Amino acid sequence: MNVVKMAREAREASRVLAKTSTSLKNRALIEMAKSLRKRERLILKANGRELAAVRRTARSAAFVERMTLNGERIENIARALESVAKLPDPVGKITDFARRPNGLIIKRMRVPLGVVAIIYESRPGVTADAAGLCIKSGNAAILRGGKETVLTNAVIADALREGLKKAGLPPGSVGFVNDPDRKAVRELLRLDSLIDLVIPRGGPELTMAVRRESLIPVLAHDKGLCHTYIDDRVELGMALDVAFNAKAERPGVCNAMETLLVHEKIARAFLPNMAARYAAAGVELRGCPKTRKILPGIKAATAKDWDTEYLALILSVKIVKNMDEALAHIAAHGSGLAEAIITSDKSRAARFLKEADAGAVYHNASTRFTDGGEFGLGAEMGISTQKLHARGPVALEGLTCEKFVVSGKGQTRCST
Amino acid sequence: MNVVKMAREAREASRVLAKTSTSLKNRALIEMAKSLRKRERLILKANGRELAAVRRTARSAAFVERMTLNGERIENIARALESVAKLPDPVGKITDFARRPNGLIIKRMRVPLGVVAIIYESRPGVTADAAGLCIKSGNAAILRGGKETVLTNAVIADALREGLKKAGLPPGSVGFVNDPDRKAVRELLRLDSLIDLVIPRGGPELTMAVRRESLIPVLAHDKGLCHTYIDDRVELGMALDVAFNAKAERPGVCNAMETLLVHEKIARAFLPNMAARYAAAGVELRGCPKTRKILPGIKAATAKDWDTEYLALILSVKIVKNMDEALAHIAAHGSGLAEAIITSDKSRAARFLKEADAGAVYHNASTRFTDGGEFGLGAEMGISTQKLHARGPVALEGLTCEKFVVSGKGQTRCST
Repeated sequence: MNVVKMAREAREASRVLAKTSTSLKNRALIEMAKSLRKRERLILKANGRELAAVRRTARSAAFVERMTLNGERIENIARALESVAKLPDPVGKITDFARRPNGLIIKRMRVPLGVVAIIYESRPGVTADAAGLCIKSGNAAILRGGKETVLTNAVIADALREGLKKAGLPPGSVGFVNDPDRKAVRELLRLDSLIDLVIPRGGPELTMAVRRESLIPVLAHDKGLCHTYIDDRVELGMALDVAFNAKAERPGVCNAMETLLVHEKIARAFLPNMAARYAAAGVELRGCPKTRKILPGIKAATAKDWDTEYLALILSVKIVKNMDEALAHIAAHGSGLAEAIITSDKSRAARFLKEADAGAVYHNASTRFTDGGEFGLGAEMGISTQKLHARGPVALEGLTCEKFVVSGKGQTRCST
Repeated sequence: MNVVKMAREAREASRVLAKTSTSLKNRALIEMAKSLRKRERLILKANGRELAAVRRTARSAAFVERMTLNGERIENIARALESVAKLPDPVGKITDFARRPNGLIIKRMRVPLGVVAIIYESRPGVTADAAGLCIKSGNAAILRGGKETVLTNAVIADALREGLKKAGLPPGSVGFVNDPDRKAVRELLRLDSLIDLVIPRGGPELTMAVRRESLIPVLAHDKGLCHTYIDDRVELGMALDVAFNAKAERPGVCNAMETLLVHEKIARAFLPNMAARYAAAGVELRGCPKTRKILPGIKAATAKDWDTEYLALILSVKIVKNMDEALAHIAAHGSGLAEAIITSDKSRAARFLKEADAGAVYHNASTRFTDGGEFGLGAEMGISTQKLHARGPVALEGLTCEKFVVSGKGQTRCST
């Protein structure tokens, strides 16, 4: 289907969704899950064909793994839709209230954005996840996944639309762009009168391309260059555990730590133990000159290291004079995703939490918790590193906005 | 000063402002007001020179009026700064709280955006207003006003910086671009690594130019195409008063009504009286065919009329079959600024308030109230017609964002 036509249908559908009750939206989510389960064989057949095609290319094993579905994964995707049905509905929530001297009553009401486009890579699970979050928050969705999984996604999108129809909602609520040509995306990104928000989900190249080409407002994730600062007033065992977890538990994700900042007074007591634990896990360290005096065996960190998101078992380490220097380093090099302090000093923690400028700031915990599920949002559409609209993990609320609702008794305004 | 250097200074200053206490920010605002009063003669001298220059051009009387200062206006500008000092500080406000099963405590804290650029026309009052709102919300400001008032603005900006200095805050917190060349604006709009938000304040051309050229996120106002829908279940006197006020009280502003929608069952009882009141005030009516059957003397509305923001004593009038048709008309032609229903039926009002898609929706009141002051926000940076980040009147809160603040006891994350 033509992209403009799809966006028009989504716009129409969004007007219906905006006024749909919570219970009906939940029923639709449950029907969508049912349809997915019913089409398991069709989905696996399409996925098998696409996997066979991709295995003949030079794609990495990780890429193939991410696009692979099986019975268990489809069941998990269906269950995720059912769990979104259980989340509280943000739409209609009243968040503020004021009575003005002239008697006007002013409230703020949470409402859907309208039409949300999601552009993602070859991960078929995103098709259902993104559609589910949009429906629950009263938005229509336009989905555009990676070209390697276009057949699999098409079957999934059909299943979702069937579920919507069964619940009596317009199937145009979920549009799926099955044209693998990049031109279709470019066309989509110009439809700012029909689409309210575009969310790129994928690597920095995808995000950059979307930012450059889009006339529609973008909600995006830049990169995750996360720091952990080890203060000198600290329980060493906790500092070792948290710093180890932040780097080594899953280094390939955006909320993993890339740079460790250590107060100079604790460096001699902390770094040798820390280095031993990292060495056992295969973590390569790159240090500032002061660090290399304590750990002479490690590589020197270059200026570039402080700005590198390794996404690998590599960590840059810097010794700082105090928290001021740590905060200045974070201000200069952080990406605004997550920053942590490990300290037993409450007032230092309070200062760090206030001043470190990121979507999520931590006291005595691992940056790895930066995730919608871990934060109790019930789901995650992505993690925003921008400041406007939504910061940090984005779930249902980030897909809504607030309007002013004013009730009067015939009040009119006088010139002032 | 070079624009890049100014933006770097503002970025540095923003780190200081973000951690400045409410009382110190308030003291700075009061010092800024004092400095303004002290420089009254200098300001009036610069303004006088610029007024003399503009009077030799073809600029309209309204343009000249808007750029004119006098003692009283300077006093009002100073008082506005003092009143911003009295507003509650949004920074540091905690808005949400959750304790997770693993013991992590998750809050959301309101924080400043960082550096905000404001691009406005030749209205010197904006210089102090915009700077005051930025300082109170913990942001640095970069100001760029119209070229006709660059001398006046420069004196005002100097006064503001003097006030900041007296309070011990960095004068770089308020940067003023005194280069009248458009190139300076273009350069500013590319500094997305130093500036967090740009707010154009002026007509649609200015907004469009900023949207097109900016790499920085934009918070803007498109236009105000406001409707008032007169339901058939209505107190006629109230309907007449509110519809008259919405159109005629001050037709040149964005929150004035441009199209009146009337339920067909009430049209015969309502329109002749309404037309008489409008006629007495010199309002020109343009009607749909049904309207012209009741008011045969008026002009026919063309397709273009339904999309025109007149900003003048002109009103398009359409008779609709029911609220569905009214809502569909608003969805097709509204600009998302303000929409109103006049009805005595509470359930219809509730439906309209939910479904009409605008920054402000009204039941039994004039759209003219769409204003930060009238809403009790204490001030106004502008009225946003976009959905992302802030909608409707924007004051201090719209200049902030929320971050997640997580407190733990050494929690680490396990792979799932």
